[in-house]
Amino acid sequence: SRSLNLAVIPGDGIGQEVVAEGLKVLSAVLPQDVKLETREYDFGARRYHATGETLTDADLDALKKHDAILLGAIGDPGVPSGVLERGFLLKLRFAFDHHVNLRPSKLLPGVATPLAGQPEIDFVVVREGTEGPYTGNGGTIRKGTEHEVATEVSVNTAFGVERVVRDAFARAQARPRKKLALIHKNNVLTFAGHLWTNIFNKVAEEFPEVTTEYMHVDAATIYLVTQPERFDVIVTDNLFGDIITDLAAAVSGGIGVAASGNINPSGAFPSMFEPVHGSAPDIAGQGKADPTATVLSVALLLRHLGYDAEAARIDEAVSADLAERTGKPARSTSEIGDALAVRVAG
Amino acid sequence: SRSLNLAVIPGDGIGQEVVAEGLKVLSAVLPQDVKLETREYDFGARRYHATGETLTDADLDALKKHDAILLGAIGDPGVPSGVLERGFLLKLRFAFDHHVNLRPSKLLPGVATPLAGQPEIDFVVVREGTEGPYTGNGGTIRKGTEHEVATEVSVNTAFGVERVVRDAFARAQARPRKKLALIHKNNVLTFAGHLWTNIFNKVAEEFPEVTTEYMHVDAATIYLVTQPERFDVIVTDNLFGDIITDLAAAVSGGIGVAASGNINPSGAFPSMFEPVHGSAPDIAGQGKADPTATVLSVALLLRHLGYDAEAARIDEAVSADLAERTGKPARSTSEIGDALAVRVAG
Ligand SMILES: CC(C)[C@H](C(=O)O)[C@@H](O)C(=O)O
Ligand SMILES: CC(C)[C@H](C(=O)O)[C@@H](O)C(=O)O
Repeated sequence: SRSLNLAVIPGDGIGQEVVAEGLKVLSAVLPQDVKLETREYDFGARRYHATGETLTDADLDALKKHDAILLGAIGDPGVPSGVLERGFLLKLRFAFDHHVNLRPSKLLPGVATPLAGQPEIDFVVVREGTEGPYTGNGGTIRKGTEHEVATEVSVNTAFGVERVVRDAFARAQARPRKKLALIHKNNVLTFAGHLWTNIFNKVAEEFPEVTTEYMHVDAATIYLVTQPERFDVIVTDNLFGDIITDLAAAVSGGIGVAASGNINPSGAFPSMFEPVHGSAPDIAGQGKADPTATVLSVALLLRHLGYDAEAARIDEAVSADLAERTGKPARSTSEIGDALAVRVAG
Repeated sequence: SRSLNLAVIPGDGIGQEVVAEGLKVLSAVLPQDVKLETREYDFGARRYHATGETLTDADLDALKKHDAILLGAIGDPGVPSGVLERGFLLKLRFAFDHHVNLRPSKLLPGVATPLAGQPEIDFVVVREGTEGPYTGNGGTIRKGTEHEVATEVSVNTAFGVERVVRDAFARAQARPRKKLALIHKNNVLTFAGHLWTNIFNKVAEEFPEVTTEYMHVDAATIYLVTQPERFDVIVTDNLFGDIITDLAAAVSGGIGVAASGNINPSGAFPSMFEPVHGSAPDIAGQGKADPTATVLSVALLLRHLGYDAEAARIDEAVSADLAERTGKPARSTSEIGDALAVRVAG
């Protein structure tokens, strides 16, 4: 008999509420013979306030033993900006070498978009997750004085760029349209830009069926609102990926439905799946949060672990649920979770 | 009698066509007693192809003597990416210390936006123009090998940040809504982020009437498409400013109407004004380019030099022209220029 040993990090605010629904749907969709084991971890603002800890070496050792990690959301306004981001989220991405940060954007029927004319949107962003301006390199001198200088160093390696570019090409190759866009700013960030562009062009030779294009990040934001249908797979660096995936989520139905995976494709460390939204302290504890993004993150988790049929059932359940929302009264977090659990079990 | 001594850089592609119309409108709007002198410079791809030069010290000396610079657009596909950007555009911005990169976004009546529901958009982005990831700091080792490492260093100084933040506060103070948003990514880029945030908060104390907010750049892209009416003045770093001003242009009517100023507020060097769009080689020479962005850049130029009434007349002429476009056949570049020249003279 098979087993799925899951680390669960509900986190703060609505993280608690949406993760409960994610697990509900996961239990409902898993085949009978798969034994689901979960262990909950109390990382996030509450633990930080109580102990000052964000993520210890012992925590990392414990997390390592799981097949995958499901995260709700981390953070509350009482924690200084950067503490949990650097001390927990980024620390985990770096420690577990989550170099493929996967963020699909699909505008589903019945879902509202801020764009006029309900365009067809169905693309996936492969964001590099362990390099670029996110490495924490840099520093400050003469802090707090009128002569302060602060630097941020974007670090890009052939090793790091090639593996994520290769992953993106493989994903493009597996999709019907077989298109891949590299997004960067190689006319200004010429050192990193040339590395990305050269490796992209080199790997392209191994994927002759994939149609490629290059786009500056500034121009990409224009296309994301004027021609989002043009995109199929996008590969980009850590910071550009952060920026354009929030925009992508906005145009394709909002962060209420945006899922993401922090993936280590080698399996050397467990991958982590999380909704793109934050802990939303303003609506926490009221049963108002939409668990859909978390449920879709569970689908990404299942697909990563090879449960393709189960992942597809979740995607279909979510599509059907969203399509029937228009004109109906709003449901609570757990009502939406219940409805999705019924659909995937059915 | 007064004089206006203008350097004109038509550049490449449609740059030539739109600058001609910008000058037409400028001549029409200037008071009779102002003597307009223009000198044209052949910078851009043509000169680069012919001589290998982009911008020499002698060129800079010549440009320095003018009151202001009007630029069309630079670039063609035959020039390797980065050569004219670093060798001309950025070189000029850095040499003339254009630290206030001013980009207004206003959705005018009659102008199409990709957003549903025709939101009210009227904000201005103050983008830092001489620091951040644009400094060209960084480098490459082991180029072309599997061990290549490429870095890009974002350099941020208290001096550079404070002057642009101060400029943005003054602009916010002078507008009816008096709102200023700082956009950065201070939860990840903590060195630069703290410098920006601390200086922003410090200068805010001198402007008690200005309402401030902080927003991460990723979240800002969401608000720019879901709630663009929330913005009044935005201040941000060089790279974030590059990205969000293209998005801002897209949602507020497209880059056909987006104007910009590369401003040295001290007047130590001439400021440069240019449309946000590029040289568009695909439509060059066909009289299809819309000169509106260039004409609006002329208005920014006039306002910078103290010709406020004339600048306002251009803005009004453009508004009236755009409002009457709907349903009419498309006009040529020079027909639009003629119409605007008639309006500002009238
Ligand atoms: C919270 C922050 C560190 C994070 C990031 O910048 O990657 C978030 O914005 C995201 O996109 O997952
Ligand atoms: C062409 C390029 C160097 C430039 C920039 O990145 O600043 C352009 O995108 C702009 O916004 O003016």
